[in-house]
Amino acid sequence: MPPKRLSAPEYATGILAGSRTVLGRAITLVESTLPADQALAQEVLQAVLPQTGRSLRVGITGVPGVGKSTFIEALGRYLVETKGLKLAVLAVDPSSQRGGGSILGDKTRMPWLAAEPAAFIRPSPSAGSLGGVARATREALLLCEAAGHDVIFVETVGVGQSETTVHGMVDFFLLLMLAGAGDELQGLKRGIMEMADALCITKADHGNELAARRARLDYQNALHLFPPAPSGQVQPVLLTSAVSGLGIAELWTVVETYAEATRQNGYFEQRRQEQQLQWLHQSIAQALESRFYADAAVRERLPAVRAAVAAGQITPMAAAAELLGTKA
Amino acid sequence: MPPKRLSAPEYATGILAGSRTVLGRAITLVESTLPADQALAQEVLQAVLPQTGRSLRVGITGVPGVGKSTFIEALGRYLVETKGLKLAVLAVDPSSQRGGGSILGDKTRMPWLAAEPAAFIRPSPSAGSLGGVARATREALLLCEAAGHDVIFVETVGVGQSETTVHGMVDFFLLLMLAGAGDELQGLKRGIMEMADALCITKADHGNELAARRARLDYQNALHLFPPAPSGQVQPVLLTSAVSGLGIAELWTVVETYAEATRQNGYFEQRRQEQQLQWLHQSIAQALESRFYADAAVRERLPAVRAAVAAGQITPMAAAAELLGTKA
Ligand SMILES: Nc1nc2c(ncn2[C@@H]2O[C@H](COP(=O)(O)OP(=O)(O)OP(=O)(O)O)[C@@H](O)[C@H]2O)c(=O)[nH]1
Ligand SMILES: Nc1nc2c(ncn2[C@@H]2O[C@H](COP(=O)(O)OP(=O)(O)OP(=O)(O)O)[C@@H](O)[C@H]2O)c(=O)[nH]1
Ligand SMILES: [Mg+2]
Ligand SMILES: [Mg+2]
Repeated sequence: MPPKRLSAPEYATGILAGSRTVLGRAITLVESTLPADQALAQEVLQAVLPQTGRSLRVGITGVPGVGKSTFIEALGRYLVETKGLKLAVLAVDPSSQRGGGSILGDKTRMPWLAAEPAAFIRPSPSAGSLGGVARATREALLLCEAAGHDVIFVETVGVGQSETTVHGMVDFFLLLMLAGAGDELQGLKRGIMEMADALCITKADHGNELAARRARLDYQNALHLFPPAPSGQVQPVLLTSAVSGLGIAELWTVVETYAEATRQNGYFEQRRQEQQLQWLHQSIAQALESRFYADAAVRERLPAVRAAVAAGQITPMAAAAELLGTKA
Repeated sequence: MPPKRLSAPEYATGILAGSRTVLGRAITLVESTLPADQALAQEVLQAVLPQTGRSLRVGITGVPGVGKSTFIEALGRYLVETKGLKLAVLAVDPSSQRGGGSILGDKTRMPWLAAEPAAFIRPSPSAGSLGGVARATREALLLCEAAGHDVIFVETVGVGQSETTVHGMVDFFLLLMLAGAGDELQGLKRGIMEMADALCITKADHGNELAARRARLDYQNALHLFPPAPSGQVQPVLLTSAVSGLGIAELWTVVETYAEATRQNGYFEQRRQEQQLQWLHQSIAQALESRFYADAAVRERLPAVRAAVAAGQITPMAAAAELLGTKA
């Protein structure tokens, strides 16, 4: 028997009281694409909105195998055990549906956090489009904040467009890298290094320390050649090991120092406001475009028009005018 | 007395015959925002379209003062005099209207090219939005190709969004940099280095050679740490001097080698097709958004809605729904 449908006030009360069950169900609600669920979800969000915005939002990215899950387990445990913080782990993984579910935010990879009441882990929603997944994750983040989580991690793989999306919803963006630049960069998206607020060279343990130290030096030198970050802060490069614990506490100090400095210089609040307004205008653009491309006449003409444009038989401008005429 | 209005076939014939006057007037036509001019411009473009696509399109960017104009004068002269090529220089500069006209593509900064029949220089259109300027420049580029120009330079300042726009309309994207990383990076947009197909350290002359060589080494090392370019080509770092001529011929060899290699591996054609399709979908998105934001009800509500979103009183999603409802 499926659980009884809650009302918006019931959801809100449950979330604010810290009920994990209600939080989980509310996230399922924001992930739903049914119009009735969406409407209810918006009511819930509006009700809890005054209690949101108080967490530190941290994006974590890196190629598959760099050690994201292991790192989140180690850092998360430090935050909960040593710092006494309440943590939520979300994920954005629109593309890969490995074995029926996203591997990002997979609880089996984070056994300590998964068993810890002060930590809440939620795998990536499995909706299709990046836009849809992004919306659901942004809204889940607000729900987690209302539920009293002090820190929210948003995990993603740094190989596509999703890391830009995650960068657009967090206060601090962390890039995990492997030592020994080369093959492991293959999957990484160009431009991502310049988006990061800090870099961690992972797995700096066992026989790997020397290579890791060398990599840190190289990246530090390279980052000096980049234009300065809009935050006004330097991008530190740290060595971390989830095995030995190296760099975990240090990284958190970096995040806290960053948050304090950008709160003081106004960038923290400015970035959040810009993110909100971007989200507004992206939502509008997305809605307009999906209406347009869902139109029957447009759908019928689009393949031929795209082919003509790609073949250089018609200018993109004329093609756009034709499709817009079809629609009007 | 203003010149008599030409018909679309007259424009097309004049352009294909290589008339600079007709080419110039046709570009004025594509720059116009009057609906009647736009319609005529599309007719002209459609008529010359089969004669487009044969040039090498090169984007050139860098901070103010890096030496773009001087570099274009030197490289352009080399292409015309030594290589026997026909060159067009366009520019994208949506923001700055310094003294009634864009300084980019300013003929007084390129006296030799300005006086040379085999070179055609056109300053940036002065329309307002980047989208409008980009459209006009893309269309001007097609007209220049139809007029038989072998090489098209598109100049822009690397400090805003315009360099991404230019990157989206060229085959090869060149970043000019000053030696001695530091202050001169201030204005440069983050992410731009990773977009470049080659870097030139400019002004490598007089007492500046040592610093330039040092900078080249630094950038070469840094670029090794970047993920590889989608073209599959390395990004060379060259020393150039518009004064001594150092690196000018070498840079052109780099461009030619790049074009040959990417034509062979299919990336050249693929990038152009992707650019065409991007232009199509961007045109559609732009048209949909400008219709939406031009709506009277939307215009009336927007400021209050944006303020509420920025203040965190309403979720961006709910705000978007409200505005979209207003419009529907
Ligand atoms: N030596 C060492 N191994 C590590 C460390 N962190 C992770 N690993 C190992 O690296 C492998 C990948 O780690 P994960 O945490 O699953 O990597 P991931 O980035 O989450 O990978 P995906 O979820 O596939 O994207 C595992 O075998 C881990 O045990 C570390 O700090 N030191
Ligand atoms: N020594 C030396 N000076 C140069 C060289 N190239 C340009 N300059 C000087 O640098 C200054 C700026 O050059 P421009 O070509 O106007 O630079 P720009 O990038 O076009 O500048 P904006 O149009 O303002 O964006 C001028 O004084 C040039 O004479 C060079 O190769 N060597
Ligand atoms: Mg993982
Ligand atoms: Mg200039």
